[in-house]
Amino acid sequence: MTHILKLGGSVITEKHRAETLDGEALDAAADAVADAVVDGAVSELVLVHGGGSFGHHHASEAGVSTTHGTDDTADAIAIHSAMKALNQFVLSRLHERGVPALPVHPLSAGSRDEQGELSLPLGQVETMLGEGFVPVLHGDVIATAEEGVTVLSGDEIVTEAAVALDAERVGLCSTVPGVLDDEDVIPEITTFEDVAAVLGGSDVAADVTGGMAAKVKQLLDLGVPASVFGPDAISAFLAGEEPGTTVHGR
Amino acid sequence: MTHILKLGGSVITEKHRAETLDGEALDAAADAVADAVVDGAVSELVLVHGGGSFGHHHASEAGVSTTHGTDDTADAIAIHSAMKALNQFVLSRLHERGVPALPVHPLSAGSRDEQGELSLPLGQVETMLGEGFVPVLHGDVIATAEEGVTVLSGDEIVTEAAVALDAERVGLCSTVPGVLDDEDVIPEITTFEDVAAVLGGSDVAADVTGGMAAKVKQLLDLGVPASVFGPDAISAFLAGEEPGTTVHGR
Repeated sequence: MTHILKLGGSVITEKHRAETLDGEALDAAADAVADAVVDGAVSELVLVHGGGSFGHHHASEAGVSTTHGTDDTADAIAIHSAMKALNQFVLSRLHERGVPALPVHPLSAGSRDEQGELSLPLGQVETMLGEGFVPVLHGDVIATAEEGVTVLSGDEIVTEAAVALDAERVGLCSTVPGVLDDEDVIPEITTFEDVAAVLGGSDVAADVTGGMAAKVKQLLDLGVPASVFGPDAISAFLAGEEPGTTVHGR
Repeated sequence: MTHILKLGGSVITEKHRAETLDGEALDAAADAVADAVVDGAVSELVLVHGGGSFGHHHASEAGVSTTHGTDDTADAIAIHSAMKALNQFVLSRLHERGVPALPVHPLSAGSRDEQGELSLPLGQVETMLGEGFVPVLHGDVIATAEEGVTVLSGDEIVTEAAVALDAERVGLCSTVPGVLDDEDVIPEITTFEDVAAVLGGSDVAADVTGGMAAKVKQLLDLGVPASVFGPDAISAFLAGEEPGTTVHGR
């Protein structure tokens, strides 16, 4: 039974200060993951983390998005190296707690074709899971036909991996406790129309990889229930609960 | 026309001192690559480098080989991190010279099944080549069913990539000027029997990923001519010559 847990970039970094970790938040997330993995509550876990102030800073400076690329090697390397640095922080905190985490860098693994269609072979992740490791993927740049490299968001990875790995549970840990209608968490979403007015598109501009509206759209297409919750609810999610908002698509 | 050039680990590192770069040799190799790439003599180039004193030191300490694995995360990370450190040195020297090099870490890309059969999807490398980048792969650890992780040698990567990418030319830069019969370079090898007596297996023990005998056996199966030469001959190879020993298999 494969769980996919995404740690939002804004959860584990100080989003408004370039390349600054939120060490306390990352420690807390690593504690929750270690509790679930080391005591065996979760047998197969894939972690994905976003870019936060590591990836987004360089991506917006270079003008690179999920659809608009660059063929400038220095820009590509700047984004990729920042994301690897963040990934190294995440891995270290997990290793300190006994989690058998291994890095999987998407630039090394996948690509997009001329239509922007993502190809992300995940045999390495399946083999790692079978051997008891916890693969840790992250938002990255990715080679893209006719664009050089474009951004691959953590959310796209979650969507791709959920299908490819036939995941049973998907959790997205964000800075908010769920999808909000004013101040209330919407417990369940089954169609985008239900929440389109609420989501608007307000936070999309703040995030090169799209905000909550894009996230909900992707999750509705997953084919597996996905929960969106805050940092305090990681343990509950890994214990089998459905904290925050659960998106049930088709 | 895709060229694959492997820089042997013993060429670019001080093989007998743990994690020590041979900076001069790496500079010379990077010069030769930059000359060929920047002036357009080579349009599509894949670089592969071995582990030398970076990977082999940790691999032999952990008792890990291409067939015998470990499920110890710390050992896997030690080998992988050392190889990434070496890869970072290689990339930096190439970037300094204007080569649009991007890293491809095999742990992130491939795996072996229960029979040890390698699966290394290379769509990311093809897309990078199409976009004018120079992908740089390296010996690494790789997730392996029933073994945890095993070593993936640079030579295995060359073999796999030559077939998958339908490479037209393969070059292996070693510390020796070719396959030697006493002190003479054998210009051409077409069957292993021709050179079995000469190669013996003398240097296999010194290298967890196999020595010249294993290399020649792999090259005979390539289906494309492969040249084995010394560091001074990189430019000649990239200019279209066949320096050192050329192995023509089936």
